[in-house]
Amino acid sequence: MSGEATKRVYAFGDGTAEGEAGMKALLGGKGANLAEMARLGLPVPPGFTITTEVCTAFYANDRAYPEGLTEEVEAALAKVEEATGKRFGDPASPLLVSVRSGGRASMPGMMDTVLNLGLNDETAAGLAALSEDPRFAYDSYRRFIQMYSDVVLGLDHALFEDILETYKEERDFALDTELSADDWRAVVELFKAAAARELGRPFPSDPREQLWGAIGAVFDSWMSERAIVYRNLHDIPESWGTAVNVQAMVFGNMGETSATGVAFTRDPSTGENAYYGEFLINAQGEDVVAGIRTPQSLTEAMREKMGDPAPSMEAAMPAIFAELASVFARLERHYRDMQDIEFTVERGKLWMLQTRTGKRTAAAALKIAVDMAAEGLISEREAVMRMDPGQLDQLLHPTLDESAPRTLVASGLPASPGAACGEAVFDAAEAEALVKQGRKVILVRIETSPKDIGGMHAAEGIVTARGGMTSHAAVVARGMGRPCVSGAGEIRVDYENKLFRAGKHVVKQGDVITIDGASGQVLLGEVAMIKPKLGGDFARLMSWADAARRMKVRANADTPADAQTAKEFGAEGIGLCRTEHMFFDDARIAAVREMILAEDRDGRVAALAKILPMQRADFEAIFRIMEHRPCTIRLLDPPLHEFLPHAEEDVMDVAAATGLSAEALMARAAELAEANPMLGHRGCRLGITFPEIYEMQARAIFEAQAAVRAETGAQPAAEIMIPLVATAKELEILKVRIDAVAKDVAAKAGAQPAYSVGTMIELPRAALRAGDIARFADFFSFGTNDLTQTTYGLSRDDAGKFLADYLGAGIFEKDPFVSLDRDGVGELIRLAVERGRAARESLKLGICGEHGGDPSSIDFCEEAGLDYVSCSPYRAPIARLSAAQAAIRRSG
Amino acid sequence: MSGEATKRVYAFGDGTAEGEAGMKALLGGKGANLAEMARLGLPVPPGFTITTEVCTAFYANDRAYPEGLTEEVEAALAKVEEATGKRFGDPASPLLVSVRSGGRASMPGMMDTVLNLGLNDETAAGLAALSEDPRFAYDSYRRFIQMYSDVVLGLDHALFEDILETYKEERDFALDTELSADDWRAVVELFKAAAARELGRPFPSDPREQLWGAIGAVFDSWMSERAIVYRNLHDIPESWGTAVNVQAMVFGNMGETSATGVAFTRDPSTGENAYYGEFLINAQGEDVVAGIRTPQSLTEAMREKMGDPAPSMEAAMPAIFAELASVFARLERHYRDMQDIEFTVERGKLWMLQTRTGKRTAAAALKIAVDMAAEGLISEREAVMRMDPGQLDQLLHPTLDESAPRTLVASGLPASPGAACGEAVFDAAEAEALVKQGRKVILVRIETSPKDIGGMHAAEGIVTARGGMTSHAAVVARGMGRPCVSGAGEIRVDYENKLFRAGKHVVKQGDVITIDGASGQVLLGEVAMIKPKLGGDFARLMSWADAARRMKVRANADTPADAQTAKEFGAEGIGLCRTEHMFFDDARIAAVREMILAEDRDGRVAALAKILPMQRADFEAIFRIMEHRPCTIRLLDPPLHEFLPHAEEDVMDVAAATGLSAEALMARAAELAEANPMLGHRGCRLGITFPEIYEMQARAIFEAQAAVRAETGAQPAAEIMIPLVATAKELEILKVRIDAVAKDVAAKAGAQPAYSVGTMIELPRAALRAGDIARFADFFSFGTNDLTQTTYGLSRDDAGKFLADYLGAGIFEKDPFVSLDRDGVGELIRLAVERGRAARESLKLGICGEHGGDPSSIDFCEEAGLDYVSCSPYRAPIARLSAAQAAIRRSG
Repeated sequence: MSGEATKRVYAFGDGTAEGEAGMKALLGGKGANLAEMARLGLPVPPGFTITTEVCTAFYANDRAYPEGLTEEVEAALAKVEEATGKRFGDPASPLLVSVRSGGRASMPGMMDTVLNLGLNDETAAGLAALSEDPRFAYDSYRRFIQMYSDVVLGLDHALFEDILETYKEERDFALDTELSADDWRAVVELFKAAAARELGRPFPSDPREQLWGAIGAVFDSWMSERAIVYRNLHDIPESWGTAVNVQAMVFGNMGETSATGVAFTRDPSTGENAYYGEFLINAQGEDVVAGIRTPQSLTEAMREKMGDPAPSMEAAMPAIFAELASVFARLERHYRDMQDIEFTVERGKLWMLQTRTGKRTAAAALKIAVDMAAEGLISEREAVMRMDPGQLDQLLHPTLDESAPRTLVASGLPASPGAACGEAVFDAAEAEALVKQGRKVILVRIETSPKDIGGMHAAEGIVTARGGMTSHAAVVARGMGRPCVSGAGEIRVDYENKLFRAGKHVVKQGDVITIDGASGQVLLGEVAMIKPKLGGDFARLMSWADAARRMKVRANADTPADAQTAKEFGAEGIGLCRTEHMFFDDARIAAVREMILAEDRDGRVAALAKILPMQRADFEAIFRIMEHRPCTIRLLDPPLHEFLPHAEEDVMDVAAATGLSAEALMARAAELAEANPMLGHRGCRLGITFPEIYEMQARAIFEAQAAVRAETGAQPAAEIMIPLVATAKELEILKVRIDAVAKDVAAKAGAQPAYSVGTMIELPRAALRAGDIARFADFFSFGTNDLTQTTYGLSRDDAGKFLADYLGAGIFEKDPFVSLDRDGVGELIRLAVERGRAARESLKLGICGEHGGDPSSIDFCEEAGLDYVSCSPYRAPIARLSAAQAAIRRSG
Repeated sequence: MSGEATKRVYAFGDGTAEGEAGMKALLGGKGANLAEMARLGLPVPPGFTITTEVCTAFYANDRAYPEGLTEEVEAALAKVEEATGKRFGDPASPLLVSVRSGGRASMPGMMDTVLNLGLNDETAAGLAALSEDPRFAYDSYRRFIQMYSDVVLGLDHALFEDILETYKEERDFALDTELSADDWRAVVELFKAAAARELGRPFPSDPREQLWGAIGAVFDSWMSERAIVYRNLHDIPESWGTAVNVQAMVFGNMGETSATGVAFTRDPSTGENAYYGEFLINAQGEDVVAGIRTPQSLTEAMREKMGDPAPSMEAAMPAIFAELASVFARLERHYRDMQDIEFTVERGKLWMLQTRTGKRTAAAALKIAVDMAAEGLISEREAVMRMDPGQLDQLLHPTLDESAPRTLVASGLPASPGAACGEAVFDAAEAEALVKQGRKVILVRIETSPKDIGGMHAAEGIVTARGGMTSHAAVVARGMGRPCVSGAGEIRVDYENKLFRAGKHVVKQGDVITIDGASGQVLLGEVAMIKPKLGGDFARLMSWADAARRMKVRANADTPADAQTAKEFGAEGIGLCRTEHMFFDDARIAAVREMILAEDRDGRVAALAKILPMQRADFEAIFRIMEHRPCTIRLLDPPLHEFLPHAEEDVMDVAAATGLSAEALMARAAELAEANPMLGHRGCRLGITFPEIYEMQARAIFEAQAAVRAETGAQPAAEIMIPLVATAKELEILKVRIDAVAKDVAAKAGAQPAYSVGTMIELPRAALRAGDIARFADFFSFGTNDLTQTTYGLSRDDAGKFLADYLGAGIFEKDPFVSLDRDGVGELIRLAVERGRAARESLKLGICGEHGGDPSSIDFCEEAGLDYVSCSPYRAPIARLSAAQAAIRRSG
């Protein structure tokens, strides 16, 4: 930084400012908003902001200030003196200031506020005289010493608290309010002496020394360990730096006509268009925070609602309240969003200390966005941009009542949102049986596998001791819309005794537990819940989103129930129908196992013939629900051994139930066992080696189409998807076979099936060879779960063991199975899009991995030019909103 | 094909030809070489070739010949008539012809030869008169009917054989030679009658009908099922087509001054510069093949060597032999390679029927290449190009004596070359124990795992029932230079009873078996072997190769013994030293397990302190052997559970042996178990989560360096390689830690360690992000085993189950774990090379996967611009030769 020509200090106050709201990078959020309020002519105590560039220069230059900074600060200070009519260090009319840090983003670890800076023995005496309130002056003085010693000088806070406690004990004082001006003067002397003892030099009495000390402390805190850790975690560049705000003090504690308060311009909890805030008469801001006194309501309406005995500000200070209300209205109009505001009243005069966009709950965010659009304050597209899609999730599931008491048993990952409550059960079959008896259960497992699907579906919610955000339990639960806590490591499941231990807790089968899938908590007993409301505001915002988006939104749905939910949540088709889930049904698994155990093709064909009518019925039901909407049906994907029992006990059960030989079952399971099933004999590899499986599935699809068309007259649109393709040749071979089945069905049914054939792009090689593959594909669907696994060489079932370390070390910014890795996986997708489209212009492109429901990943899909995203039915609204935001973002 | 302006028929003979050797694509190999010999003025029976383009046009045009072909054939036939003075179909002077197919590559399934075409009752009579040998004429006639009926008309061969047998039986004839001219004439009548019965029309007597029938049969055979299958398997495009050669007959069976023979211009078995061939007096070519008469030696030297009683051609026909010898010399000089030749002598006149480059054994190929270079016939670089690197492998290992009898027990994959013999043993520990007693063993396992390493090393060879070319057994065996047959599916191992079954064979522990790693055979008993000779010719050719190559060749070596072998086989460094193999040693595994079971960092550090001196000693030994040569040492890679026992029995043993708790062992093993270990907690992920492991390894390397430097004065060059990197951040973090250890060791040892830090590129993401990663890497080594696994999403341990189907369906041209997939994996490598070098110009690039020893993959490495390849020590010469060939190929 050359620095010579750069302005380093920006003044504000008195109806003007050198900065403005747009200068957050240079002045920090707080400084920029103070300048903006000053420009608006609002009553802002005058002050100045030292820019973030000074911080950067400070570190670039071995912790030395750039030349000329002192002069600029002095000039700005002179302006403050002029505006206030007071002088810094002048006992006759002492100017006191506050010093605060303020970066672009608020950041823990940064230096907090120093108030009342400029006080020493002389100015304190002057303040006492001027305010005609010596007690106020010496109380302020002792607060300053305490705060400055702690924050700037690094002395132990307890040192001063001990002195004060001792002083009060010796005089039998219970409350600070009992101390007189003389008491505080005595305490000040004790404080100064103690500080001098600790420092080995006197407590600084020169106001300018105090000021530069505080400025230096702000800059030093930028490199504190806590700040560095926070920056690394949140990816805030060190080069951003922090600004320093120096501002004339105003006092809410100068008697009964003084006050201090905080307020939101709308209710941050419900979004109601009503002021929401609290204030305290004759107090400083820290008193509100400290909680020693109970704050009063800002408005009468709020007071009534809360049942407060103390009067509201609206009633107690009607003139000031009216002025404040007009400021609120002005700020909301100006910033076009709900504001979070701090103010102080000094002897009947209102001062604005801060404004910023207010945080809010999901419900409030929705209501505020829709209301503001209705009020004409923002456009409908802006309203769409205002809703955080991640927050939207809260509105789609029952949530725990925040105010209800909780007894935490264990914590895990928030794997699938929503709250659920029921008896703990440790076996999937038992869960199903209990639910049939009308009981509500939570299925608790070490981990789940495809054979638990029935029990998972029956259960209200699922808890697993092992597994990450994309473990089997998590993926299936999200797909089903069941709340799920996965990887609750403290839980030790004891299947034999039907109980689990977690710390000191023992939960036996039948004990009621509640789980919160949004926070990952497992709780004892039944905790009160709040049902979601998908009413008018929600529907209105979603309709605006639907109008704004370019990409279609589909859902991953394996069953008629899923398809129904998908349609209700606004999905425009099915992006992934996993046919293997249909194989696990009790009625079918026997035939599936018979097929696997068959010695030859004839045996397999015979077993598959038993499955055909059942599979056809599934497709019929789904086609009936989805009507004309496109359904992408993926042919069998998992390795065959997933359908066989493994534990000896299970083998015996299956043998008894099916009449198959236990020995043959065991031998075949051993033969099919794989070192790395994820990379094994699955997907289209099964289709290549056992042509009869895919042929049966294709036949079931085509026959179901014909049946539904005959029944309803609607033409179901089937997109047949081949999984795990690595080479164009695989797809070429399988497409020929599917076309042959279509011809055969057409000949028998007397009508052409309407279908297309495409492939998952879920292997790096498929992405690279997309040009070849597109010659045989009508569509690509990016299977980003597997694509992430193979691109990273990372099994999502096994990543849990080191994922936390990787996030902690900053190797992963986010779990790559949750949020798509744009640099690696993303490049493969971009390559595949480019090469696929170059080979076939009409190629339809979508995504069906878990990322299809993640807002940041959906943004990437828009950027990459995909035609649609597909996600679990319950996330369809999130996807619709995210797709809309991505489109708006790119429309400039 | 427009075809109008295209020449479709090429004549040859009489000292001229319209074609030449360079026109193989158009005329096929046989036709092109016949033309070339005619051009050289050699005595070639005149004839003509119908081009391969006619075949293509034939199929493009719905099996119709292009217009004008008949006229061109007639014109060419007229030239043959002119040259021979005979006329096709003229009883007074009948021209007979042979018709043969001949493509670019010789191909099974194509139509074989038809001889004596042009014969009918009239021309046969004419031939009898002209040759004054009616027996010859009618014998030729019946041979023609038989051959034409079989090959062109598709009649059953047995039909004619039965007739002949019956005829002979009825007359009490034992041998064909007992039949007179009249007998053959009678047989001809019987043959014609039988053919007419079968055909429902007379046997074709018009020579032109015969000719077009034969031409059509050649073209038809191009689309025979056998030909199509062969083309698919060998990737021969259908569009190549086949040519048809029509040539005037010459007869080796016209009495004692006639003969027929085949010869090589050098010994195809040893490479000796001496003619090698056989001939028969008064015979046609088919008689040599039929084996009814024993052929005689071509030369006196050969006759003496063979101990033949019959005279050699050199003695029996000295003038013809001299003429033949001069033709041999001429052809070898002309083609500049050893030739495989067919000739016929008709009544004292020599005719050349074929010449082509002769197939030869590896030993012969080596000797011929080196000799020809010494003779000045070819350059040294040409000699290098003449040796097939795949064949070279045969020279580096003992091989089975081809002439020894074999009893095949089972067949598997040729996983690691060489032959070995010993007692079958089914347990690795038992193998070690037996070898210590001085016994020789073959280790037979269902599959092997890292804990079998000791037994594998002790054994002479390894057999597994499961696993592909890159299964654990195969990779380790190749690395150790142990012969190995993997995936011998017929073998059923019964560990309990210590035996295996394969078909009808039962092999018990202690039974001697022999394995042939070059062919994948498992044989009963001891089979005689031939030791490799790496003498003068080998060394000379390798020195020429070394002079020609650009890339360095290193070896993958984990132990001092490997390092020694690597140096002896000409490796210029170690490209991959896998440190985990050092962990399995009996003395260390206990400490390794203690480390894994440790509850915290301190416990791990204490256990690692026990391993440090042992690991340091390993590195010292390797550095001592490799001297100044670079050694790339890969830090710990496999997941920790690989070091724990899994079977309950093993756990008890380990618990007893180490004093560790069996319960703790089981619990930890269960905790560490992974769904997909290949994609799990391994490689640098271990380094990130357990920093102390890599720190110990780095310390062992640096301390070993210091010790060897102090001892020998040589500076060992250590290249520390971090495995499984997916992000630049991983490498950055680990490099910082390694540098810190180096500083610490330097401070204590008083000298700077000389080292560089680099990474494996073995994940698609690493290849894509090579630019970022190169900022922290001194070198990249492409780990193409894992890169192939992740790019294809294909586990090499599990691929065996469908690999055969994939090769059969033409989805894989070659096993991608054997020969690098240039299109997919290759693109990632090219991207990584480009991006890595762009970020760091000095980046050193190599390959250390199994592909580093595969000639075609090495060719790719040259093309991609890598600096070196690394392969198992025993393959280093193959890599040196392949690298040289790749460089020569690219030098134009």
